[in-house]
Parts: sequence; structure tokens; C-alpha cells
Amino acid sequence: MPHTPVNLADKLSRITEHWSPRIVGALNGQEIKLAKLQGTFVWHSHPDADELFLVIRGRLDLHLRDGVVSLSEGEFYIVPRGVEHLPVADEECEVLLLEPAGTVNTGDAGGERTVEDPAWL
Amino acid sequence: MPHTPVNLADKLSRITEHWSPRIVGALNGQEIKLAKLQGTFVWHSHPDADELFLVIRGRLDLHLRDGVVSLSEGEFYIVPRGVEHLPVADEECEVLLLEPAGTVNTGDAGGERTVEDPAWL
Repeated sequence: MPHTPVNLADKLSRITEHWSPRIVGALNGQEIKLAKLQGTFVWHSHPDADELFLVIRGRLDLHLRDGVVSLSEGEFYIVPRGVEHLPVADEECEVLLLEPAGTVNTGDAGGERTVEDPAWL
Repeated sequence: MPHTPVNLADKLSRITEHWSPRIVGALNGQEIKLAKLQGTFVWHSHPDADELFLVIRGRLDLHLRDGVVSLSEGEFYIVPRGVEHLPVADEECEVLLLEPAGTVNTGDAGGERTVEDPAWL
């Protein structure tokens, strides 16, 4: 039985769309996702899900209602459940997300940028 | 209210002991830990906890009873609950761990290398 590591760079190289998280791991009811982000997303929150953003490459600003968290490569931030946030990437960045399985990218906001059922990569 | 990112390199630079995970984040009942590993640990498993190892720097071999997973920088592997594993680092490596809050480093093996209550860093 082969045991294969997940290589973040390899997986990210296969992502072509922005704001479309892909699942690369699952454990303890959580999912590990990778995404490429560029531009401004939508304000939203996740009522029942804390969400971790770890920047793998580039920079990401997480706007909150009372401030901004600016993340560089190798930095993470956990947005607590229920806290409104707006991800903004002035240039393309690559991020690792950790959140409960089934968490939807646009949270309570919905709308056309929602990815209901992200695929495994 | 300041919102401060967690910088992995900064946190890792403050770790001086091997095989002594430190907590740097918590979400959804899980904990994010950082550790420096060098040498051979002990065979163990976690009956109720899937455990993710992500290599931040260096290399880590996860020996399983039916094979070895060799992880390089930027690679992760999830050891499923109940699966015996033996982490081995020929040279010092730095890893990020993700597992349920309260998971003990030596799992069901116990012994002198157990860290019962890892501290926040």
C-alpha cells in the first residue's frame, strides 16, 4: 500500500481559477483546502465555523469590521466563527484553508461566487 | 482591538527543545502546534485522533507498519486515527501539527517523552 505525501506546490500548480477552493485533505471532521485568490471577495461570516487562512505565497489582507489583518507568506490567522471578514488580495496569492468539512466559501452571504461543493484535488 | 497574524518562522525560532510541541492556534476543537524534531521518536498511535504533519523546514520520515512516508518541505501527510507511526528525522526538521485539542504526543505509548500539557507559544 503506497503512502503518498501531499505536496502543496504541486497541488497549487493545478489550480487555475481564483476563489475556488479545492480539498486536499480531511481529518477529524475538518478539511484542508488550497486556493488561489486575487482581487476582492465578498463580506461574509461562518456562524458555526472557525476558519484558518495560511498564506503559502504572496500576501492576503483579511478585512474585519474593526481592522485589517495583513498576512504574508508563512503567516496564518484564524477568523473566529461569526466574525465578518472580507479577503482581499491585491496580487494573486496562494493560501491553505482549514475549516469544518462542508463549510461554504461565501458563508452566510451566498451569491454567485459560492462554491457549494468544492472538489478534491 | 489588534488582530495579529501568527508567523510560523518567528514562533519556530523560539522553540529550543526537540519533540516538545507548542500550541500556536486553536479552532473547531483542533489545535495547531509547532515542533522541532530530531532523531527517532517512539512508535505510537492515537485511537481517536487523525494527525496531520506538515514539514515547514527539513525532512521527516513517518514510518508506518507497512511503509514509510518521506516528507519534504511543503509536504503533509495525515496519519489516520489508530495507525501506528514512528516519526524519524535524521537531521533537525520543523513541522506544523494539526490534531484534536488535548492529543498527547506519545499517544497510547506513553513513557518519558510524553508532554502531557503542551504550552502555548
